[in-house]
Amino acid sequence: MRNLRLLLAYDGSEFSGWQIQPDAPTIQGTLASAIGRVTGEKVLPQGSGRTDAGVHALGQVATFAIESPIPPANLVKALNDILPPSIRVLEASEAASDFHARKSARAKTYRYRMYRAAICPPLLARYVWHYPYPLDEDAMQQAACLVTGEHDFTSFAAVDAERGHEDEISYVRRIFVSGWERSEEELIYTVQGSGFLHHMVRNLVGTFLLVGKNTLKPENISGILTARNRAVAGATAPAGGLYLVSVDY
Amino acid sequence: MRNLRLLLAYDGSEFSGWQIQPDAPTIQGTLASAIGRVTGEKVLPQGSGRTDAGVHALGQVATFAIESPIPPANLVKALNDILPPSIRVLEASEAASDFHARKSARAKTYRYRMYRAAICPPLLARYVWHYPYPLDEDAMQQAACLVTGEHDFTSFAAVDAERGHEDEISYVRRIFVSGWERSEEELIYTVQGSGFLHHMVRNLVGTFLLVGKNTLKPENISGILTARNRAVAGATAPAGGLYLVSVDY
Repeated sequence: MRNLRLLLAYDGSEFSGWQIQPDAPTIQGTLASAIGRVTGEKVLPQGSGRTDAGVHALGQVATFAIESPIPPANLVKALNDILPPSIRVLEASEAASDFHARKSARAKTYRYRMYRAAICPPLLARYVWHYPYPLDEDAMQQAACLVTGEHDFTSFAAVDAERGHEDEISYVRRIFVSGWERSEEELIYTVQGSGFLHHMVRNLVGTFLLVGKNTLKPENISGILTARNRAVAGATAPAGGLYLVSVDY
Repeated sequence: MRNLRLLLAYDGSEFSGWQIQPDAPTIQGTLASAIGRVTGEKVLPQGSGRTDAGVHALGQVATFAIESPIPPANLVKALNDILPPSIRVLEASEAASDFHARKSARAKTYRYRMYRAAICPPLLARYVWHYPYPLDEDAMQQAACLVTGEHDFTSFAAVDAERGHEDEISYVRRIFVSGWERSEEELIYTVQGSGFLHHMVRNLVGTFLLVGKNTLKPENISGILTARNRAVAGATAPAGGLYLVSVDY
């Protein structure tokens, strides 16, 4: 068996997230079906992590095992011929047999785009969070810096049945980079870490927003982390502004 | 009665074109309904021209008459609160009573975006024509220059029943600007003229493509114009790459 690695980009707004579902269009399901058509083999590609409905990817990584001898470059062309334009295979390569898109990942980088002008251009509407109200962007930057390092992120993790708060799961993650930057009318958050809990980036953004609105002070971030209580952090920011930028191995 | 003028931007991919239809989402219908909700008045805004399904606008102009005393700035906010994010009102202003978005127009500018790299980013898929094959871009530019000036554009007009080839309609239009430019991976056609026939910009692009592929020579453009025969020009380029940029009065 060969172990193949794909680098993928997608527009999440047309899909019910990464994970395959019986009656909804998903990235994983659409990709599995395309690989099946090209190789005649039934495979379920494993992503570096799930992305939720509406979340985009510039550099998602997926792995799967096949018997087919198809050269990686031909696989890229054949998959892109079949896949909808909202999913693109950017690269395919042979991977070591023990390489796994999720288990082998050492770091992931996400980006969150907010649009600050009064009117959001229609062509950006699916791809940013339009937030035209006043924000203290310096305070948001101070707050963002305070999550770097190793912390228990329970306060920023979705409390959901499917991936629930089981005792055996650790909520500790290490954040390497966390900061906001301005690019014309966009306010962009970039975060790189060892891994991310469900909704974690969107919950961080929603909490930094409360800092920007002066509902919270930057120094409240430490207390929110130590509280290990989802209720003390901000609301989940909308999915459309979030991008999985890259995965490091 | 007041005569109001709106400047609009929209993502055409979610609509069945500008013109109102009973059972399909259209820009004109969606806008008429929003104006009705804000003012309580039943109006049908008149655009500077129809855009087809999938065609975008960065600066469409529309006019309509209302009794409501609502200040233009409030109308912008109220409409944008009701309209989907895929349609934005950029400006509203009082217009002279004899001003009409279509009849008063002196010139229109359209842009057509082609994407030339091997793989088209998913976030651009609705907004460009992905054409990764070899093209002689210099020849396309020579051909584009040859349509400037006053010509009969019958060969580039859609032959359709609804807006058919009636004898009383003139197919003569004046083109002020017509040219291609490169912007990184995009090849962009900009055309400004006194007016445009149905499908005219997309048929010009489809014909310039034949020049780029060496199926036609740039100097064939003159013969295509004088033939006054749709069958001798190229195919209609896809709608998603086309933008109504601005209207001059």
